Amino acid sequence: MEDKVVLLDFWPSLYGMRVRIALAEKGVQYEAKEENILLEKSPQLLEMNPVHKKIPVLIHNGKPVCESLNIVRYIDEVWNHNSPLLPSDPYQKAQAMFWADYIDKKIFILVKQVLKAKGEEQEATRKEFIECLKTVEGELGDKRYFGGERFGFIDLVLIPITTRFYSLEVCANLSIDSECPKLIGWAKRCIEKQSVAKSLPDPHKIYGYILLLKEKYWF
Amino acid sequence: MEDKVVLLDFWPSLYGMRVRIALAEKGVQYEAKEENILLEKSPQLLEMNPVHKKIPVLIHNGKPVCESLNIVRYIDEVWNHNSPLLPSDPYQKAQAMFWADYIDKKIFILVKQVLKAKGEEQEATRKEFIECLKTVEGELGDKRYFGGERFGFIDLVLIPITTRFYSLEVCANLSIDSECPKLIGWAKRCIEKQSVAKSLPDPHKIYGYILLLKEKYWF
Repeated sequence: MEDKVVLLDFWPSLYGMRVRIALAEKGVQYEAKEENILLEKSPQLLEMNPVHKKIPVLIHNGKPVCESLNIVRYIDEVWNHNSPLLPSDPYQKAQAMFWADYIDKKIFILVKQVLKAKGEEQEATRKEFIECLKTVEGELGDKRYFGGERFGFIDLVLIPITTRFYSLEVCANLSIDSECPKLIGWAKRCIEKQSVAKSLPDPHKIYGYILLLKEKYWF
Repeated sequence: MEDKVVLLDFWPSLYGMRVRIALAEKGVQYEAKEENILLEKSPQLLEMNPVHKKIPVLIHNGKPVCESLNIVRYIDEVWNHNSPLLPSDPYQKAQAMFWADYIDKKIFILVKQVLKAKGEEQEATRKEFIECLKTVEGELGDKRYFGGERFGFIDLVLIPITTRFYSLEVCANLSIDSECPKLIGWAKRCIEKQSVAKSLPDPHKIYGYILLLKEKYWF
């Protein structure tokens, strides 16, 4: 049976980007269905992810997989013939999952808070965000990618955040270039990969989206 | 080389209980080191989990693994000769991970909020907690365990919550027995297993701990 793969996605989603990169890395052909979650969720999304009602959802031969880290792990297991994303060694795998969890719970949550907050509250979340980014940068150290010489799971999980760096500079006066230079070097290496480049939207387009959120939804 | 396994733990921890059950299921001998995280974190804990500074930490031949779901997955992979916890099929595994994540982000967070909150705030979190518990009960349905006939990953991840049921009844007037009867039946089946029974503290002892928290830390 030929695989039928559908991805319910929304172009500015940090979580959707992860899945796009994973599918591109594996060379999986799929149908991308764009949801506009700001306006109305499609009946298909509500049926496929009744618990969270959130994108991304990967529908593989009719069966849904939800939550981005879960989807990426699933893709890595099912299309295991090329481009392994997670290490096979249990200890290294546990380390990769630890950092993915940290990025999810800290970096991705905080970036939204920084962009959304104002005044003193922004100052506090801004400080915490930078601390967390430096913690992740410390884990990268002088390596080419987080896992060493090859692009892998942690890189894929973190790289979507770079689409917010321009907005952070404009909206929160935050220069990641000067705060985390090693992370910027890593991001440049990642974006040279076609699987990454074609999966991430233009940071200026993201800035337009953030302005729309600020005007219509975040006040 | 013989495995040296140390577990940094704290007896009332919902997260610690998961790791205890996993080690018991696998028959792994280990040294349990009790932390009193309310008073002072040990130098060993700070060294082994510098990012979160939280128990549980599994130290396997000197190398730390942190975060309970991550630790349980690691245990399942390393001691894979008996009692598999996660299904081997990628789709079923993704489903198990999805529910574990839901239990972590919803049930375990909300139970603390319900026990901590007062008045109207308690009423709102109480309602959300029950809804989430019913969602999980819906996933269980009429099955013996979440994965079918055998005790597995989701069971292990959720069962520690039952140590809070007595406290919920006394502190929040919440009868899980009448709200979620199928879940109560499942809990009774789980607790018949020696690996579970010996890993969960007495709910009355947990109630004493909750009272201490309310008196000294939650006000």
